Amino acid sequence: MPTYACDLADVREAAKRIAGIVHRTPVMTSETLDQLAGRKLFFKCENLQKVGAFKYRGATNAVRKLSDAEAARGVVTHSSGNHAQALALAARVRGIPAYIVMPKTAPAVKKAAVEGYGGIVTLCEPNLSAREETAARLVKETGATLIPPFDYPDVIAGQGTAALELLEDVPDLDAVVVQVGGGGQIAGWCIAGKGVNPRLRVFGAEPFGADDAARSKAAGKWIPQTAPNTIADGLLTSTGELTWPVIRDRVEAVFTVTDDEIRSTMRLVWERMKLIVEPSGVVGTAVVLTAAFKSLAGLKKVGLVFSGGNVSLDKLYW
Amino acid sequence: MPTYACDLADVREAAKRIAGIVHRTPVMTSETLDQLAGRKLFFKCENLQKVGAFKYRGATNAVRKLSDAEAARGVVTHSSGNHAQALALAARVRGIPAYIVMPKTAPAVKKAAVEGYGGIVTLCEPNLSAREETAARLVKETGATLIPPFDYPDVIAGQGTAALELLEDVPDLDAVVVQVGGGGQIAGWCIAGKGVNPRLRVFGAEPFGADDAARSKAAGKWIPQTAPNTIADGLLTSTGELTWPVIRDRVEAVFTVTDDEIRSTMRLVWERMKLIVEPSGVVGTAVVLTAAFKSLAGLKKVGLVFSGGNVSLDKLYW
Repeated sequence: MPTYACDLADVREAAKRIAGIVHRTPVMTSETLDQLAGRKLFFKCENLQKVGAFKYRGATNAVRKLSDAEAARGVVTHSSGNHAQALALAARVRGIPAYIVMPKTAPAVKKAAVEGYGGIVTLCEPNLSAREETAARLVKETGATLIPPFDYPDVIAGQGTAALELLEDVPDLDAVVVQVGGGGQIAGWCIAGKGVNPRLRVFGAEPFGADDAARSKAAGKWIPQTAPNTIADGLLTSTGELTWPVIRDRVEAVFTVTDDEIRSTMRLVWERMKLIVEPSGVVGTAVVLTAAFKSLAGLKKVGLVFSGGNVSLDKLYW
Repeated sequence: MPTYACDLADVREAAKRIAGIVHRTPVMTSETLDQLAGRKLFFKCENLQKVGAFKYRGATNAVRKLSDAEAARGVVTHSSGNHAQALALAARVRGIPAYIVMPKTAPAVKKAAVEGYGGIVTLCEPNLSAREETAARLVKETGATLIPPFDYPDVIAGQGTAALELLEDVPDLDAVVVQVGGGGQIAGWCIAGKGVNPRLRVFGAEPFGADDAARSKAAGKWIPQTAPNTIADGLLTSTGELTWPVIRDRVEAVFTVTDDEIRSTMRLVWERMKLIVEPSGVVGTAVVLTAAFKSLAGLKKVGLVFSGGNVSLDKLYW
């Protein structure tokens, strides 16, 4: 058995470490969606997590695991998405500084959100090398610990805690379908889910316009995501050095859906389930509504994760 | 002690009768809203109820309570709102017909929603006497039982079951703030809530443009609602013969808010809680954010009800 960035024991420790800080989110069901999917669906509502996204689990686990001496120097990341907000709040809850590197082109509302959680924002040029250099400089200057958004063992273990909770609530799931961006969430779910129940089948879900994991699985080797183009803006990145091996070995297949399918699924969830889920958060749900997925046999009960609910309410998506 | 349309024992029987048919909805919290309100808030999420509204409780209780002989002849109501959909589904679940009288001016989408739940729609002229006459004719022709939307003991008892659940989950609530339309919900909550805990304080919440209960309370006598004008389209009606005495005796005060306050609260709930709640469902939440309510002493823990989530997603509300 190969070893990965973390194992089931790490996820169980993470669950203890973050208990009482992170919400135990509800699992919702919908008869309408069951009918459309042709099977029973169980939705883990991480859109109702603090910060509005599952990212708060991994960030909290990483921040709580630091020694007091390490923690006192703070944490650093470069992100303009949900991980930045999650790390800022996780740091504030521990009473330590969070240095967040964001591209100067990031929307003002995202900067304000991070600052609202107490994050100290440093703007940089909008390219990966500038972000990495700025983060490295902050680490050097402050002695803070870099907490990357997904390719980091404690983050992966933290994300897996949601799968543990879902399997406690619905122990007889046949499969889970999980969104893939950098792969931190699906790697954590593989390790936790298959750790608890080795027969659990894990499928990935990607937008057609950022389908690097699907192409990597098909090719049998890691392929980076270049020039992503999708409404699902949380799923733009390539999988990582730590997450790809888990996806390669533990994920049965990665399904893709179009942005139109994502939009219509999003509207369906808002209308029928009364839950605000962001485009990136409904990609798995869009997958289970496709003919391709519906044709799979032996899947009576399928788990999904509404991974986040952070959308602008200044526009309609349909 | 005066007697009302129903008592705590009726609500407890209703809870047993509808168990397993009606969702036990979750109770949510939000640190952001707590901070804005200056106290701890607990939200009973009836927007996540089947049919997207608390109305399914009362309709189900009324339908389940019919004898087999009565039930076989069906049920009738005149409504174009959530009660119509709720009664249609409650009837379908029992396998009996539901005759729904709607004004011919009702939006096609509302007619389609009722028919989607199996309701048999009869259109009539858009005035109250036409609706009542049409419903009476259907009762005469079919022998079906008329189930009004609020002024009916079994409906009031059914609505009270949500308060029982909330007080089971949060036993030490100091008060609840409940929307008032026809008054079925708040009457049920008074009877259930004060039945369980006589010290529980109950406040009403109304839109300024449909403030008949507030004016009735101030005058000490029933005043009908004429020419209502508010975005909260579920709260347009006057209180009823059965609901008004409960409100008169058991509700401490009724607070009003403007449509702008309702809209901004609705956006706040969508953004921060990721829950879709209709305008009528956030009026109590808008009340607890007012200076008037915040100035009340002795209310550490306050319960609220997101009474429904049925909104058109074809437009923005702000």
